[in-house]
Amino acid sequence: MIRFLSLVFILSLFIQTCSTDNKNDKYNFVIIFVDDLGYGDLGTYGHPTIKTPNLDRMAYEGQKWTQFYSAASVCTPSRAGLLTGRLPIRNGMMGKNHGVFFPDSQNGIPTSEITIPEELKKQGYKTAIIGKWHLGHKEEYLPLNHGFDYFFGIPYSNDMNKIESHENVKSNIRYPNYWKQYELKKLNSDNYNIPLIENYNIIERPVDQTKITSRFTKKAIEFIQNNKNEQFFLYLAHPLPHIPLYAGDNFLGKSKRGLYGDVVEEIDHGVGLIINEIKQNNLEDNTVIIFTSDNGPWLPYETHGGSAGILREGKGTTWEGGFRVPGIFWGGKIRPGIIDDIGSTLDLFPTILSLSESKLNEEKIIDGFDIKETLFRGEPTQRDVIFYYRNREIFAVRYGVYKAHFITQGAYNYPGPNQKKYLDEPLLFNLENDPSEKYNIYNENQGVINEINLILEEHYNNLTPYKDLLEDRSGVEF
Amino acid sequence: MIRFLSLVFILSLFIQTCSTDNKNDKYNFVIIFVDDLGYGDLGTYGHPTIKTPNLDRMAYEGQKWTQFYSAASVCTPSRAGLLTGRLPIRNGMMGKNHGVFFPDSQNGIPTSEITIPEELKKQGYKTAIIGKWHLGHKEEYLPLNHGFDYFFGIPYSNDMNKIESHENVKSNIRYPNYWKQYELKKLNSDNYNIPLIENYNIIERPVDQTKITSRFTKKAIEFIQNNKNEQFFLYLAHPLPHIPLYAGDNFLGKSKRGLYGDVVEEIDHGVGLIINEIKQNNLEDNTVIIFTSDNGPWLPYETHGGSAGILREGKGTTWEGGFRVPGIFWGGKIRPGIIDDIGSTLDLFPTILSLSESKLNEEKIIDGFDIKETLFRGEPTQRDVIFYYRNREIFAVRYGVYKAHFITQGAYNYPGPNQKKYLDEPLLFNLENDPSEKYNIYNENQGVINEINLILEEHYNNLTPYKDLLEDRSGVEF
Repeated sequence: MIRFLSLVFILSLFIQTCSTDNKNDKYNFVIIFVDDLGYGDLGTYGHPTIKTPNLDRMAYEGQKWTQFYSAASVCTPSRAGLLTGRLPIRNGMMGKNHGVFFPDSQNGIPTSEITIPEELKKQGYKTAIIGKWHLGHKEEYLPLNHGFDYFFGIPYSNDMNKIESHENVKSNIRYPNYWKQYELKKLNSDNYNIPLIENYNIIERPVDQTKITSRFTKKAIEFIQNNKNEQFFLYLAHPLPHIPLYAGDNFLGKSKRGLYGDVVEEIDHGVGLIINEIKQNNLEDNTVIIFTSDNGPWLPYETHGGSAGILREGKGTTWEGGFRVPGIFWGGKIRPGIIDDIGSTLDLFPTILSLSESKLNEEKIIDGFDIKETLFRGEPTQRDVIFYYRNREIFAVRYGVYKAHFITQGAYNYPGPNQKKYLDEPLLFNLENDPSEKYNIYNENQGVINEINLILEEHYNNLTPYKDLLEDRSGVEF
Repeated sequence: MIRFLSLVFILSLFIQTCSTDNKNDKYNFVIIFVDDLGYGDLGTYGHPTIKTPNLDRMAYEGQKWTQFYSAASVCTPSRAGLLTGRLPIRNGMMGKNHGVFFPDSQNGIPTSEITIPEELKKQGYKTAIIGKWHLGHKEEYLPLNHGFDYFFGIPYSNDMNKIESHENVKSNIRYPNYWKQYELKKLNSDNYNIPLIENYNIIERPVDQTKITSRFTKKAIEFIQNNKNEQFFLYLAHPLPHIPLYAGDNFLGKSKRGLYGDVVEEIDHGVGLIINEIKQNNLEDNTVIIFTSDNGPWLPYETHGGSAGILREGKGTTWEGGFRVPGIFWGGKIRPGIIDDIGSTLDLFPTILSLSESKLNEEKIIDGFDIKETLFRGEPTQRDVIFYYRNREIFAVRYGVYKAHFITQGAYNYPGPNQKKYLDEPLLFNLENDPSEKYNIYNENQGVINEINLILEEHYNNLTPYKDLLEDRSGVEF
């Protein structure tokens, strides 16, 4: 009887699919971008006690990418890279002394930059960002001035508030000392409370972070419902599981992995609701949903930080754990499978432009590659290089299976001092045979360094670094 | 059109299923037991570059267990535990000085022990072991004297041969020094070449290890074909990916993960063939296929060893990486899902006996629990304790989410000297919140140790250690 019901269900899907095939010409896009989630933090990427059935199913029905990279290993430049398809060194989002924007930062992403939603709007798409922006919180830099029709979210990271706001979780966290000092010095002002902004207006301050995940999920679903008869681009940028962690009442205390697991499981639940909404509106065949993270796990926070799985180190570093993140692509026309070619969030810009038949009118160096042939036909990606920038320098380069480190630096005291080291001779790893970067093979493969040096030379020849826009901090609050 | 074909396919499955539902009364069992495969070495357990589509599908359609343990962290006792449901300290398979049997060992598993196939034979099952035995290679101890109708395989580990046999892979391996010394001293004799045995007869010596995986898979499929109209128990114990590694021509050089990946991908391919055979004979609804590993990865061999994923350490140790292994259960009636309750290979004995309606005639302490309610209905397991024996001592105990270490010892120079340390105060970890055993919480949770001490007391009260059967080595070859 159960099997017979399945038959009916499949048949009805079949009919639905046929009836919707030509409803829309172009793809809708949903990017679900989470914060500080590590490579190893989902069931399908191997975590033993975080339950993510919706993301696991999304990965199994769609594509699970196992060598997928964020554009940077901290928040602001990673987001700039995703939305522009350009290495953040090209648009001022890499700072020498500051990794990201702070509540007293004066700048934002330059208006000369072209974002995905800016291009899509020209094609008639409805565009929204729900969640964390972190590319400039002064009015002129807010999302509505960068291609979005709608913004509902927070302007910077969820930890950028006064210290009292952390107290409800403090008992569970053993913060390293630097964290308290950092907060006390910089952020102990009444105004440093995270605002919830709708378009240009603060509608709640401080935002209630225990409800932040469920509210953003709900807003995302509303946006889909309101725009189901149009083309849409939805950028759902959850501010969690960045510390401090907050889970909703239905999830708090439910995960075996503790509060961090609660938070990830609440996000996973939301992903399920969104996929369900797409299916219910018969949009699955012309929607591409992308799930990924802005960088690796923030390791100093013990069990409040995530896991990079077998990858080395985490957020802030140029080891794999900092840059490589889960990358899941789902949609009716995506060819299911595991993709172990190299991909990057930088590739989303050209891919989405290609799928929406957009054409850039300006000459701009784009650092991404169109991956649609991989998504729909399983073809190899064109990418064989990853530049691992930290601050404004290239610390490491991946070329094919090889990765050379020229400068190393840990993350554990980040953002404090942390032993930056210019290497006399590079470290070289085979990332596919040795994904944990354990066994230096420089001596046996010195010729690879010559090739990498040629790649670097070409890169620098085509690079005009934009001035450091993260440097300018007034000390005056938002 | 593709969707329409799916319909026909599902319909035919439906008809097949109905027609076979009552063909057999009891379950068939296939245990695929691999050697030294780590927790993190399959796609579905998070490995980025080892491709295991068949095991991934098996896990997705069936149950993927994320807290599943082998009975020991080395070969011989792990196999004894699986086949008897008893901690190997009870049957002499834990040695003080030797972890496993060697080609000059004099003993084998006692005939007083009852194995799974011994019980199943009483119920009319046909039983076979294809692959590695390693519970005594003298005739009286061979599988046909322990419940198996058929043996096709090797008597001990695939590295227990003279040193020249390793030369074809030597250039790729950086063996630690101890390995060479160990081989030269103990094994440099013409007779130390791995024999391939059928029942009691050596049919090839040395066995061609490049063909070992494909031959064993083929033999397993033949056994299923020959016994498809009866109840059967198949124990397919692949000797690989234990070092030295060998892959068949169709797999050599194919994996991004190098030779280790080639070997695992060949095993995965074989798993696909076996599942296919089960499906083609309409046996899926009354067959349970179990895939697991005898212990964690053997870490000293660099890229020739596997990965325990986020778990600490590997083979030979009592850290999680030594004991926790992939555990996948598949079969038409198994309720799909991820199981993050605690399970053990010790549980297979009582579960298989229960599902085959066998009843032990003798009084024997069984250390396993029947997990059929978990397999078929998703109920919680009854297990909340794991004893981590090393040699003949308990080094650590898991109780619920907690694990206490009383003795620690690394694996890196195993089997050489490696700093055994009796701890003045135990280390305590929460394995579910902190699966990598990083954050000692002993100070905040000393009461847990009292509970664990009570569990230990009860254990010792019910324990009669069997004499050390691994100790007796003559120096004379097989």
